[in-house]
Amino acid sequence: VFHVTWDVSSAEKGGYEHFMIKEIMEQPKAIRDTLTGRLPDDGFEVNLDGIKITKEDLQKLNKIFIVACGTAYHAGIVGKHVIEKLTRIPVEVDIASEFRYRDPIVDENTLTIVISQSGETIDTLVAMREAKAKGSRTLGIVNVVGSSIAREVDDCLYTWAGPEIAVASTKAYTTQLICLYLIALDFATKLGTISYEEFAKIRDEIKRLPEKVEYVLTHRENIQKYASEHFNAKDIFYLGRGLDFAVAMEGSLKLKEISYIHSEAYAAGELKHGTIALIEDGTFVIALATQEKLFEKMVSNIKEVKSRGAVVLSVAQEGNTDIENVSDHVLYIPRTLDILAPVLTVVPLQLFAYYTAVQRGCDVDKPRNLAKSVTVE
Amino acid sequence: VFHVTWDVSSAEKGGYEHFMIKEIMEQPKAIRDTLTGRLPDDGFEVNLDGIKITKEDLQKLNKIFIVACGTAYHAGIVGKHVIEKLTRIPVEVDIASEFRYRDPIVDENTLTIVISQSGETIDTLVAMREAKAKGSRTLGIVNVVGSSIAREVDDCLYTWAGPEIAVASTKAYTTQLICLYLIALDFATKLGTISYEEFAKIRDEIKRLPEKVEYVLTHRENIQKYASEHFNAKDIFYLGRGLDFAVAMEGSLKLKEISYIHSEAYAAGELKHGTIALIEDGTFVIALATQEKLFEKMVSNIKEVKSRGAVVLSVAQEGNTDIENVSDHVLYIPRTLDILAPVLTVVPLQLFAYYTAVQRGCDVDKPRNLAKSVTVE
Repeated sequence: VFHVTWDVSSAEKGGYEHFMIKEIMEQPKAIRDTLTGRLPDDGFEVNLDGIKITKEDLQKLNKIFIVACGTAYHAGIVGKHVIEKLTRIPVEVDIASEFRYRDPIVDENTLTIVISQSGETIDTLVAMREAKAKGSRTLGIVNVVGSSIAREVDDCLYTWAGPEIAVASTKAYTTQLICLYLIALDFATKLGTISYEEFAKIRDEIKRLPEKVEYVLTHRENIQKYASEHFNAKDIFYLGRGLDFAVAMEGSLKLKEISYIHSEAYAAGELKHGTIALIEDGTFVIALATQEKLFEKMVSNIKEVKSRGAVVLSVAQEGNTDIENVSDHVLYIPRTLDILAPVLTVVPLQLFAYYTAVQRGCDVDKPRNLAKSVTVE
Repeated sequence: VFHVTWDVSSAEKGGYEHFMIKEIMEQPKAIRDTLTGRLPDDGFEVNLDGIKITKEDLQKLNKIFIVACGTAYHAGIVGKHVIEKLTRIPVEVDIASEFRYRDPIVDENTLTIVISQSGETIDTLVAMREAKAKGSRTLGIVNVVGSSIAREVDDCLYTWAGPEIAVASTKAYTTQLICLYLIALDFATKLGTISYEEFAKIRDEIKRLPEKVEYVLTHRENIQKYASEHFNAKDIFYLGRGLDFAVAMEGSLKLKEISYIHSEAYAAGELKHGTIALIEDGTFVIALATQEKLFEKMVSNIKEVKSRGAVVLSVAQEGNTDIENVSDHVLYIPRTLDILAPVLTVVPLQLFAYYTAVQRGCDVDKPRNLAKSVTVE
């Protein structure tokens, strides 16, 4: 008789050591699934199943609120930039636990977008209900079908990320970004605030994101190497400007959650207003410089922290090799449009957090003190 | 012949060891000076010398931007809450170095308020010029008379804080808050969005702030004691909700700037979404619980971090003694209106940063890497 010892949970990990790395690796598929049927190759429109918002509805809007917690809040910050850029509707992003208690200015001319992987995040759910009670239309970006938020919002767009088991969210975040791009394009085509050429350029480039994420994933051994060199850091700082600042926040949160290193994200332009005091000899800094029009500004900021002794790992778009002159290490992401770069930029940061936590011997999938969905206040 | 050795710089410190503590102690006078002549005891109006904005101008506005850097940006976050509450005009706060590069939605129906102690902060100055070029009216809150921002804005309201020499800003911050309250009251009376009773209540309470700040200052030996117990902390976390979160950011920045301790401020409701992973046995947490309607929520958050081993110093309004049951130390500020509490709450945090830096032997007035005014990019 031949006995096989089954370990159900490792079987579900599909050969990976942790759910988190499995879910990081699943991102190309998750993005493809989230795009399926929604972005036709031809034509000048987006097909968003769950969204019934018309041109007339959009013309009434004087504001969009995006309300979420944690990682989903960071996706919302990217969403603000993208929706404002493409539609010129003012967007305000707020943390759900703050929004709920500050009597925000919301009325029937507001659209409130709430983002939650589980669809059960209590602060986000209650914030959505309060916005609705004030007359706002509500739109959910949710992963779990049939969840409370999915059921209660006026319009729901699902991320098709599949089940996310690891506490630290990865594929939920990237597919939330995809949904926000789709919403921005949908609104912009309906409102006529985007030309066909611009639309087609963004559409075609979004469709290339899965293979570009794959490219980053296949080159992950470099990131593993940097993690093995810096896993003992007590503090790590993430710098960025514009969309890179939004991704810096998410990268920092990933690291914190699973490695317990005190990391923090700064808008690079704010450094001189106080936070650069913390940079000393050997401080590890991750500098995001993927935004083409902010590249030179970021190079200056990198020089500033280098001159105070920082060790800098930079992330830039391929071809911007000037960054090597000011950085200790450089990771390149495939070239893309600035507004889409967050989808690629976050991947090395997820991997860096993962490999660092593994090196430190942390319980990657179930970090201390944290639950997957925060359903109690 | 009797020789006296003069030390000009210590003479200017008026007997204090550092400019920073001198400037912290000057806050009651700075606030009184900033109020002088602007808030009549009777009547239903505010007299703001430099502001010529009429009721008609205000009715045209669909948005107010507040743009600043560092400490002034933190004052702006308080300003957003207060102006929105009293006028119901939507307010967006942005970091000047971000605002400049993101093509913000600004037009002739926007008022852009810029805040800068020196009036020379380069990112704030350029942001103001760009807002102006887009047709926005501009209003400056500035300390240095005749500075670039003061000269170029359409309306200028001076803080009468007197010269601020220490790099870490203290009396400039509290007087910026006072100016923001005055602006909010001025706009609200002009727009008719505030009743006389509400106006008079806030006015009378603002006038009591100098003596209440004085009260906090005279009880500073407790804060010195806590600083002497915790000055070796490697990481310190500041928690708050609503206006307390805004003050937490400022308290954290003060500590960073001069003590080089890696501190960070969190919206207390976000803890469970990741950052609570960093709390372990002995982690020092400063919890701000001065907002009456958020008090119970903060008590819950304090319990959460206590249960993970944190040592908690709480700040609350006098009389809310329940907080003692969940905290290791409590500092009370005199009772006041929730919206005015930041002026009092920040003072113990300034003192805590100061005494901690002194204990650590840091160069308090001239921290490493920092300049008083950031006039180059």
